[in-house]
This record gives sequence, C-alpha cells and structure tokens, in this order.
Amino acid sequence: MPNIETIFSPALIGHHSLEGRNAVIIDVLRATTSMCYALDQGAKSLMPVATPEDCLRYRSLGCLCAAERDGIKLEGFDMGNSPDEFNKSVVEGRDIAITTTNGTYALLESQSARRIFIGSFLNIQALADYLIADGQDVSLVCAGWKNKVNLEDSLFAGALASLLTGFTNDCDSTLMAIELWNASKNNLHDVVNRSSHAQRFKRLGVDDLPICLDLNRCPVVPEYVSDRIVGV
Amino acid sequence: MPNIETIFSPALIGHHSLEGRNAVIIDVLRATTSMCYALDQGAKSLMPVATPEDCLRYRSLGCLCAAERDGIKLEGFDMGNSPDEFNKSVVEGRDIAITTTNGTYALLESQSARRIFIGSFLNIQALADYLIADGQDVSLVCAGWKNKVNLEDSLFAGALASLLTGFTNDCDSTLMAIELWNASKNNLHDVVNRSSHAQRFKRLGVDDLPICLDLNRCPVVPEYVSDRIVGV
Repeated sequence: MPNIETIFSPALIGHHSLEGRNAVIIDVLRATTSMCYALDQGAKSLMPVATPEDCLRYRSLGCLCAAERDGIKLEGFDMGNSPDEFNKSVVEGRDIAITTTNGTYALLESQSARRIFIGSFLNIQALADYLIADGQDVSLVCAGWKNKVNLEDSLFAGALASLLTGFTNDCDSTLMAIELWNASKNNLHDVVNRSSHAQRFKRLGVDDLPICLDLNRCPVVPEYVSDRIVGV
Repeated sequence: MPNIETIFSPALIGHHSLEGRNAVIIDVLRATTSMCYALDQGAKSLMPVATPEDCLRYRSLGCLCAAERDGIKLEGFDMGNSPDEFNKSVVEGRDIAITTTNGTYALLESQSARRIFIGSFLNIQALADYLIADGQDVSLVCAGWKNKVNLEDSLFAGALASLLTGFTNDCDSTLMAIELWNASKNNLHDVVNRSSHAQRFKRLGVDDLPICLDLNRCPVVPEYVSDRIVGV
C-alpha cells in the first residue's frame, strides 16, 4: 500500500527522501494556484526558473515572462504570480517562464522525485484521483515562506492527504496536516485569512484569496516534465 | 508586547532568528521531560553534550553519564533518557552529562538565543509563568526526530503558546500548533499514541507515555547557563 509523507518546508527536503516517490509541490498563495489556472486557461506550458535573470532569457524564445518576489510583480515582466494575470486572453497557446519567491524554489529542490506534480485547491480532486490511480508513494512538499512553515500550504497538504484513500500514513507531519484540515475545512477562508501571507496580501492590497481557495475550479493535473510544467 | 515564534525542527532554526529571544527547547518524548524530572528529583545539574564520547569524559569528574540513540540507552552508560532512570535515589545531588538523539542537538543549535529554557508537559505552567514574568519574545524550538517534524513536540508548542497570555503571534507555525493543541487537548494520550515516536516506543517495549504527558508534575524552570542546565 503506498504511503504519504508531508514536508512542511523546502529546507526539510534533505531530511526526507523523494527518490522513487511522486512529489506534489504546494504553494497555494499563489504560485501553484496560478500554474493550475494558467494551464486551465489554455497556456501551453510553464517553465519554472530560479532567478528573474534566467526568466527574461526566455523572452527572445517567444515566452511570456512571470516574476514575483515578496508578493510583488517585478518590473519589466509580463506578469507576477496573481492568478488574475493568467487569463485566457493573455496565456492561451503560450509558453510562460516563471520565477517566484517560494513555489518555483520548492519545485527545483524536488527534482530527485520520481514524478513532480503541481497542487492547489483549484485542482485538488483531479490531482488526488490521478495520484490514487498511479498508486505510488507520495510526498507533499509545502513551499512555505522563505523556508518557514506556512499555514495555507500545510492546510492544503492535509486536504489532499484526506482525499488519498488507500494510502497509509506513518508520518507525523501528515497527521498534523490532516488534523489541521479537519479543524479548518468548514471555515477555510477565515482560517487562511489569519495566516501571515493573507496579512501580507492585505498590506499589498491583493485580493486573491477567493480564487486561491476555489476548490476544484480547474480540474487539471500539471506535471513537471523535462523542465516544463504541462497538463497530463 | 512580546511575541511567540514556533520552530518545528532544528533544521529550521537558521531560517528564524533566536537573537535577543528566549528559547524553549522541546523534546517531550523524552529528553526534556527527563531533564525536568531529574531536577525535580534533586539532580544538581545536567550537561547536554553532542556525542557519547564527549559524555563519557565527564565520568572522571564524578558525573553520571546518560546517552540515548534511536530510543535506546547506550551500553556502558548510567542511564538513557527514560524519566524512570532519573529517580531521586540515583540523581540526588549529582551532575549528569547527557546526550540524546534530538533534544540535546536542538539545545546546542539554539545557543544564539538570549536565554534557553527546557520545556515539557511536566513543567508547562511553571515555565509559562516564568516566561510571562520575563516579558521577552519567545521562540519555541521543537526537537522533532532527526530533523523531521514530530507530533508531540508540536502539540506541546501549541499548549505552551496557549498559556502565554499577553504575547502576540504573527507566526503561522504557532497558529498551527495552537490549532492542533485545541483539537487534541481533551484526548491527549490517544493523539500522542498515534505519533511515530509512540509507535517506536511500542516496538521497543517502552511505556513512558503516561509520565511524559503528566501535566505540571514537576514545577521546575530549567535554564541552560554556562554549559549546564539548572533550576532557576
């Protein structure tokens, strides 16, 4: 029977092993949400890259370039990481190079995994169904905030773990995440609103919480294959 | 108003800052529990050291030597880290050198803190009262298991944070820990019994859960001062 592990911060990846396991990258506010949204809106692919400089190199290849740091879209880029910026009229048929504070970092740190998927509340059931059908061990990699643990990614890990029927769990972090999810799921918006990132949104005037918590809006299963995230 | 931060694993200490803050080291199964118990039973001091070899050097100075790895007392030592081994008849008036898998490691990694205290369910209220009176920012450092997050230390962090009235909290990990504590406090033994460490206890035939979860049994406030843990 396959098992689930939860990794609350990219800084903890080295203390677990991703080898032979499916990894799910989780940065629900907002990188992995925007990735799911973009693919659902018709984007061809997303290329996660480490730095804004790397990102801009893709412009000459006809890519859109998305860059966010500390919650803010960087100047000179086509978009930051707000889902709103990835609407169909902008992204359809396009390849998008993207760099963000946490999500792309967590993804690039997870490359020893068997396969790498992108998780958000938007695609949670579609992803759960796919992982169950694939039947392999799963590691839930929370992007956190600059290597600190965050509330919303931990909550999502608990939500996804709760959907993975037929998996065993002897990982304390997963127990914690499921307990958190059960205590919060009927009150999700209010709980996430107390997180440090939601507070940061308020300071920045960002209003992305409703779309980021819109369960199953985009039934895509994005996978990172050969340096690109594409729908499978 | 002082604030609280929670650090779920020693591997995350470097992503927070302990400078100018009181740190509480948490390894409730069992190092910090045994430390509180030993001082309450009349031990003079405990010296946390990194390795069994370092530990044994203190024998010639008249110290008792305690060493545990992977839940087991090492051969040739006076005790491991079961509270039961630190009874009055053994420890009264004695200095004890101690090395454990996680707790002493977390402590030695926290030396940039302003002051370092030892937390367990046995001394939770006494410690909370002391921290409130001291009025400084507090970092709750969970020892975890080999740098992985564990359930019991996270729960304790939530329990202690709940008692720290008059402190602010803008740390997601503390929000998570408090939520966990609230969901578990009426059922503490059963919840901790599901943790990976309690499962390890079962495999090793260890029955230390009741004493480790015995709230306020030992109203001591152990502090690490000049390489030794003593009651303040």
